[in-house]
Amino acid sequence: MTLPSKENFSEWYHEVIQTAEIMDVRYPVKGLYVWFPFGFKIRQLVYSKLREIMDREHDEVYFPALIPETELGKEGEHIKGFEDEVYWITHGGLTPLDVKLALRPTSETAMYPMFRLWVRNHADLPLKVYQIVNTFRYETKHTRPLIRLREITSFKEAHTVHKDFEEAAEHVKKAIGFYKEFYDFLAIPYMVIRRPEWDKFPGAAYTIAFDTIMPDGRTLQIGTVHHLADNFARTFDIKYEAPNGEHYYAHQTCYGISERCIAALISVHGDDLGLVLPFEVAPVQIVIIPILYKGKEEAVMEACRKLAEKLKAFRVVLDEGEDRPGAKYYKWELKGVPIRFEIGPRDAEKGVAVVSFRDEKRKFEVPLDEVDEGKVLEWARELKQRLRNAAAERMAEKVKFVENTGEIEEWGGVVAVYLCSDEDCGHSVEEHGKSLLGWFEEVPDWLDLEPEGKCVVCGREGRLAALAKTY
Amino acid sequence: MTLPSKENFSEWYHEVIQTAEIMDVRYPVKGLYVWFPFGFKIRQLVYSKLREIMDREHDEVYFPALIPETELGKEGEHIKGFEDEVYWITHGGLTPLDVKLALRPTSETAMYPMFRLWVRNHADLPLKVYQIVNTFRYETKHTRPLIRLREITSFKEAHTVHKDFEEAAEHVKKAIGFYKEFYDFLAIPYMVIRRPEWDKFPGAAYTIAFDTIMPDGRTLQIGTVHHLADNFARTFDIKYEAPNGEHYYAHQTCYGISERCIAALISVHGDDLGLVLPFEVAPVQIVIIPILYKGKEEAVMEACRKLAEKLKAFRVVLDEGEDRPGAKYYKWELKGVPIRFEIGPRDAEKGVAVVSFRDEKRKFEVPLDEVDEGKVLEWARELKQRLRNAAAERMAEKVKFVENTGEIEEWGGVVAVYLCSDEDCGHSVEEHGKSLLGWFEEVPDWLDLEPEGKCVVCGREGRLAALAKTY
Ligand SMILES: [Zn+2]
Ligand SMILES: [Zn+2]
Repeated sequence: MTLPSKENFSEWYHEVIQTAEIMDVRYPVKGLYVWFPFGFKIRQLVYSKLREIMDREHDEVYFPALIPETELGKEGEHIKGFEDEVYWITHGGLTPLDVKLALRPTSETAMYPMFRLWVRNHADLPLKVYQIVNTFRYETKHTRPLIRLREITSFKEAHTVHKDFEEAAEHVKKAIGFYKEFYDFLAIPYMVIRRPEWDKFPGAAYTIAFDTIMPDGRTLQIGTVHHLADNFARTFDIKYEAPNGEHYYAHQTCYGISERCIAALISVHGDDLGLVLPFEVAPVQIVIIPILYKGKEEAVMEACRKLAEKLKAFRVVLDEGEDRPGAKYYKWELKGVPIRFEIGPRDAEKGVAVVSFRDEKRKFEVPLDEVDEGKVLEWARELKQRLRNAAAERMAEKVKFVENTGEIEEWGGVVAVYLCSDEDCGHSVEEHGKSLLGWFEEVPDWLDLEPEGKCVVCGREGRLAALAKTY
Repeated sequence: MTLPSKENFSEWYHEVIQTAEIMDVRYPVKGLYVWFPFGFKIRQLVYSKLREIMDREHDEVYFPALIPETELGKEGEHIKGFEDEVYWITHGGLTPLDVKLALRPTSETAMYPMFRLWVRNHADLPLKVYQIVNTFRYETKHTRPLIRLREITSFKEAHTVHKDFEEAAEHVKKAIGFYKEFYDFLAIPYMVIRRPEWDKFPGAAYTIAFDTIMPDGRTLQIGTVHHLADNFARTFDIKYEAPNGEHYYAHQTCYGISERCIAALISVHGDDLGLVLPFEVAPVQIVIIPILYKGKEEAVMEACRKLAEKLKAFRVVLDEGEDRPGAKYYKWELKGVPIRFEIGPRDAEKGVAVVSFRDEKRKFEVPLDEVDEGKVLEWARELKQRLRNAAAERMAEKVKFVENTGEIEEWGGVVAVYLCSDEDCGHSVEEHGKSLLGWFEEVPDWLDLEPEGKCVVCGREGRLAALAKTY
């Protein structure tokens, strides 16, 4: 079974998800998928990093998955943003429920009635919590594993409460820093973009998103950070007593990352042979393949075993299976194993192995006594740097800067323009078959563009903005 | 705020859950609760152990939370067991769904249609997976945090597939071993009991349960292991090709533990002052409390800091807060901190600390240079042994052996009787205000009773059985 070429991205993605055993797409409900053991291990490794970052200054909590209609409906903008896609529980057994329950689409309205009880005094602030939970959306559009789901299985949502707008705004910057660290760890390039007013989170003052560029030129939103001002605090009556004895409404932020981070990991780094994983998140980090010839098995196996033993701090597989070496290469390439050793009879005799990295064609010989943990970690660092650079280069090629709205439509990828803050100009650029992602908060190092210029529509002062077809 | 005495167990439990910050019971839907940061840390520590045990021979997976009515209804016995308590999703937004979706009450019917695709050949067996997920029950009875919930937030469910009945039966024994290890780790005594036919898991061939005894004498089911025979395999068509080329239905097991393990942890070990936690699962393992007198702060604080530094491999809090020592003792006792050090000016001078353990009244002096990681681990082991012994002793006192059914009703705790396997005898003993838990698979070491004797009803050969009021 061969994968479709990655140039047919949609088919490639669908196939690699199933054959590399990330998710089983055969579950009998549209938009719901099963995490295979292998995929779940990637999830664990990726989310361990996310937890590590969050744990530095958030407490992990868990709020219920069921939200009463009365709470969900309290914040007017918020419910308008979600009402078409909420799953409603109307019956327990055969009994109709008095108050309908929503399956959480996100947890603001589950958490904030409790925050009202948790926050009384300025000493209770800032409050910073997060949870990693399943959330639900009744998606009517085309669904796709890890990208557009009816059950988002792995939503990391953080929620913070602050004394005023400024402190919350400072925290928004910090949250952006957390997410940068996370995506840098995964070697996934991103654009940090402030969404236009009409595309911000329902109930937020402003929304800053992380978008990455998929191989087909469409963008994938892989993280969002929202400043909620005191909008929800007023609705849910979250007030605190300041040192001066006065009571003020708190200001809040929330920010989230879902399993789309894994969709990006697969899509951004993968190739025609399958997954390409950074060392840190690979379920199998190193594979050792013995090249056996009759009568010389023992020396080869001994060299392989010694090497596996030496590297046991890592997730190593010594593939002793009966497949031919070619079939083993194929299998472990599909699974994205970053480092491969092959040892044949002559290598064993010479005390060397042939090494190759998942992202490169070349093979080279290395003396076995030079291979140790330090060496492997050095290779892992170099691999990540290569992955990151290659990904950034591919993404840069998908971004085209235009000075004329007439050129927006024809470009297959992301279009960069200068755009002023006028809403009419914003809506006007959206008339060319692409959505306005918003304005760059900062221009990525892999885009050679200035942050400011004349608005492509009206010619006034503008800032760099991006347009794209989105997932 | 003082806790009610643990003799009023129900009030004590409710209060300790809230004031020790395990769960916030003020969420605005009956039967749903919020995990506080402190409670969630206990959950993490407890479930890490459970994961460690499972990971030895199961793969972790994740199956969807939503099960179509068509699948849930396939196994006749199974659906009969759950139909009154399933939450039904009938609408997505305002749109009625074509096929109603159940919120999983447990995942057999989500998993087994996929197992049909995963199991083809004898080489695919045994298949062993687990997941830790939220499950849902529309509870109409009195709900209680961690015990009787509408959203079980932390259900660890394992599912295995085997070639025949015997292999599955062997695996049932192994699963019992896993659960024993887990509860021994938590120092929670248990009874391993085979449920009567009329109380087994819907769709199972037989069910073996772990029951513990709560302070009020009622029992709490804290784990179950089910042999499913080929009942579900026939329904979901899970067949494999044997080496002889024939196709056979597979045999299955499933076994689960929920956050009731934490309810047991709290209830079995706690006392009038609050939580009492084994060292390994305490969010704060060691607290150091400086006893400060004006002018002598520096030497005391320095001794405290040095001690905290020396023990930093553990979860240590040096409580530098402004509360008086008594208030600090109270606070950390409530949170179940296993080991407390106090250091005052004279102690600092002498190079000693006063040590006390959460489960004991005594305090004793220890030279600071004798305190190291090894010493702490030794104390932790002794503490766990004491907790386990004390709990077993209290439980043994709640079990009464009777030779006359007339004595069943009046006893407030668990009643042990000999009972034959005749269903009529089983139903007959249940006429005295208690449920028949079933027959002991093995008699616990803390119960001094023989496994076999004459049936309390009919006088024929019987085995030791237990009756109780249950949670
Ligand atoms: Zn303009
Ligand atoms: Zn009998």
